[in-house]
Amino acid sequence: MTRQLHLNAFLMSTGHHEASWRLPESDPFANTSVQHYQSLAQIAERGKFDSIFFADSPVLFGDVGRRPAGSLEPTVLLTAIAAATSRIGLIATASTTYNDPFNLARRFASVDHVSGGRAGWNVVTTAGPEAAKNFNLADQPAHAERYDRAAEFLEVAYKLWDSWQDDAAIADKSSGVWALNDRVVPIDHVGRHFQVRGPLNLPRSPQGHPLIVQAGSSEDGKGLAARYAEAVFTAQQTLEDAQDFYRDLKARTAALGRDPDTIKILPGIVPVIGGTVEEALRLEQQLDELIRPEYARLQLARTLRVKPEDLPFDQQLPDDLPDEDEIEGAKSRYTLIVTLARREKLTVRELIGRLGGGRGHRTFSGTPEQVADAIQDWFEADAADGFNIMPAVLPSGLTAFVDEVVPILQRRGLFRTDYTGTTLRDHYGLARPAGRTASLQEATA
Amino acid sequence: MTRQLHLNAFLMSTGHHEASWRLPESDPFANTSVQHYQSLAQIAERGKFDSIFFADSPVLFGDVGRRPAGSLEPTVLLTAIAAATSRIGLIATASTTYNDPFNLARRFASVDHVSGGRAGWNVVTTAGPEAAKNFNLADQPAHAERYDRAAEFLEVAYKLWDSWQDDAAIADKSSGVWALNDRVVPIDHVGRHFQVRGPLNLPRSPQGHPLIVQAGSSEDGKGLAARYAEAVFTAQQTLEDAQDFYRDLKARTAALGRDPDTIKILPGIVPVIGGTVEEALRLEQQLDELIRPEYARLQLARTLRVKPEDLPFDQQLPDDLPDEDEIEGAKSRYTLIVTLARREKLTVRELIGRLGGGRGHRTFSGTPEQVADAIQDWFEADAADGFNIMPAVLPSGLTAFVDEVVPILQRRGLFRTDYTGTTLRDHYGLARPAGRTASLQEATA
Ligand SMILES: Cc1cc2nc3c(=O)[nH]c(=O)nc-3n(C[C@H](O)[C@H](O)[C@H](O)COP(=O)(O)O)c2cc1C
Ligand SMILES: Cc1cc2nc3c(=O)[nH]c(=O)nc-3n(C[C@H](O)[C@H](O)[C@H](O)COP(=O)(O)O)c2cc1C
Repeated sequence: MTRQLHLNAFLMSTGHHEASWRLPESDPFANTSVQHYQSLAQIAERGKFDSIFFADSPVLFGDVGRRPAGSLEPTVLLTAIAAATSRIGLIATASTTYNDPFNLARRFASVDHVSGGRAGWNVVTTAGPEAAKNFNLADQPAHAERYDRAAEFLEVAYKLWDSWQDDAAIADKSSGVWALNDRVVPIDHVGRHFQVRGPLNLPRSPQGHPLIVQAGSSEDGKGLAARYAEAVFTAQQTLEDAQDFYRDLKARTAALGRDPDTIKILPGIVPVIGGTVEEALRLEQQLDELIRPEYARLQLARTLRVKPEDLPFDQQLPDDLPDEDEIEGAKSRYTLIVTLARREKLTVRELIGRLGGGRGHRTFSGTPEQVADAIQDWFEADAADGFNIMPAVLPSGLTAFVDEVVPILQRRGLFRTDYTGTTLRDHYGLARPAGRTASLQEATA
Repeated sequence: MTRQLHLNAFLMSTGHHEASWRLPESDPFANTSVQHYQSLAQIAERGKFDSIFFADSPVLFGDVGRRPAGSLEPTVLLTAIAAATSRIGLIATASTTYNDPFNLARRFASVDHVSGGRAGWNVVTTAGPEAAKNFNLADQPAHAERYDRAAEFLEVAYKLWDSWQDDAAIADKSSGVWALNDRVVPIDHVGRHFQVRGPLNLPRSPQGHPLIVQAGSSEDGKGLAARYAEAVFTAQQTLEDAQDFYRDLKARTAALGRDPDTIKILPGIVPVIGGTVEEALRLEQQLDELIRPEYARLQLARTLRVKPEDLPFDQQLPDDLPDEDEIEGAKSRYTLIVTLARREKLTVRELIGRLGGGRGHRTFSGTPEQVADAIQDWFEADAADGFNIMPAVLPSGLTAFVDEVVPILQRRGLFRTDYTGTTLRDHYGLARPAGRTASLQEATA
């Protein structure tokens, strides 16, 4: 069988285009509607997607005037979706900067239990000073410090997930012994950021560990991904950039002694699908015309750490922007936006149009055949192991992808026609991690 | 209509009796089975219960040999149950000592959204040094300090829940304005324990605030309840104790300017139901014989802060136990156990038998008629507004209560025959809190 694509549906209220909520078809209260998301997940499951995914940040970000704002906490939302689906993987974003490992490790293990082994965790360090102010801090911890904490956070989480052996509970009713004490052990973690005694207050979950996903593309972000991630979301504008990123991250992974095939790299794509090219472009244009540029400029100014007045709509970006080194927030997104604007000599207005669709992700408008080609090209050119599908409008953009693009990919032998496993790890072709306690015991036995 | 009882089903794996998992009928892996809990919730909903409830602590407590240990995180579990039910309220325990207000306030608001207004939060301060060690601490904060933090935690949560006006989102597609900026405001909380900027990253939820439940009965616990709680769980062994507690807490509530009817007091009861008294007593005895006394003594020793060797099975408790004042853990449970043992001159073995059923809650064995009488007596003697029903064995004990005791209470006109509202607040007869932002605006308008 040829190498198989992996597809993740990145879901966001009425769609990734910031003006999608203004279309007549859109439910502007979709952001708090569990029925909306359950139905999207069912569409993605019908399309045999590996997983669905929710981004998240513990702060109300940007301007509530601009687009539907506020969102359901992702582990809660995915649990509600678990009940309405049976196979598709469920990936929630959670911050290592503004959570603590005991509670979060338990919550992901709980979602894994409740969903029968379908939980994934997008591990993020949360960029920006705004979030910090919701957690007793005046400003965010430095970028390097956040990533240092993230690595230790994951180490603690692994230890907690493995603190119960899979076979700890023997449930012997006649002798009255429920579990064996030496199979449930404290972790006694003592580190720079955390002291955690353990064990977890929950037996080991169906997948052992939830799938670990990572989505920051700075140097530190790639370092974390190479060490821990099993799937990586990334924003790449050109084939060459995507190939460089892919090569780099696979090499880093191999250099750490991991099989590079155990890390799946999924660039984002915002497909705008039409029956003809003209129809697709018309839809894209209709959406772009609904953007309110003053809101979008405010957001851009915030990302670039300049004042909105410094960004006249009909001029290119100012020359004296800071280096990535000086950015303590989202380094890789910053660089992507500046590089895109400079390379294509875009005015602020044009840049806003380009970002309105996918916030830095690649937008591709065309027929189903053309979208399938775009996916296949990158896949076969070693730029991707699959894609993070980010429909501009929801649900219609997802329905179009599932009904029109997926069958083409299936006919070309690039994508599954049915699920072959039951867990999220099964879908991504990743093994269930052996319990560390168990292997420790074997090693010393 | 006569005053109506409120009933909450306190659910716990195979039942509240610590040996319940050893019965042939019990699923010893029920503690991680979402299907088990969904089915229990459906039984309680069939019985028109106000709510179901899960206790919780962020630590693996006690001995895993003793009984099914570890549990699904309650907000996740209740979300999964929300999908399988439509009316019954869903109350999760969460600690104010080992969480932070932004994330937790959002999570409860999320459960409230997802369940259509059925979320409740049992606010606890988490007793014992063990939990602290999972959160970077060597020991628990002092009892008074934990309650001080709990009060400020709640203040922050209220502000966050009210940081969006109910009518903040206008979703005006034609002008492109989704929400009005002046209806979503920062809370700028600065206090002893927390600095939280806000606003919450989620629109106001169906109930405005989840129902606030409280379950600690120490002096500080009662103080917190009088100020904030809308329902109170409590363990009371005798009618007189329960009446004292009821009178005391209603008076404290009134003294703070609240209508005492807005705080519902629910003592726990562990009903053991049989077709005849003999049958009920036989079941109770069968369960007690399955207790492994060495496990139970270990637990008792831990609660009393003595060594197990200091508790010979056939002697009464030692005379030189500490005062409640010296206990930094669960003060009221400590006092209840010591008082019970002294009052009834119980040996350690007898005390273990009494605690094995309900860990300090009142056990009542009898026919359905007798159980209904026991409930009615306390209810009409102003010892309770309702009960926390804690079946010794699950599901059978809950099924028996719903099918045999509830109809009697209904025939006597003491309990609803159907739901009249849709939210948890509706069931408890409590108003939806007005948004503070809204009233602030009106006040200054
Ligand atoms: C598809 C995708 C989804 C992301 N989702 C989140 C998210 O939900 N929350 C978050 O804090 N960061 C998210 N990020 C990462 C940020 O964009 C940003 O890169 C990161 O917070 C900082 O990483 P960096 O400095 O390593 O680039 C996502 C990135 C990608 C490519
Ligand atoms: C029915 C009931 C349920 C309770 N559930 C919990 C719980 O889940 N977690 C917890 O930490 N405390 C719980 N408590 C409270 C503890 O028993 C203990 O009283 C409390 O943690 C400390 O409060 P106090 O020192 O004010 O008594 C519960 C109490 C009752 C009566």
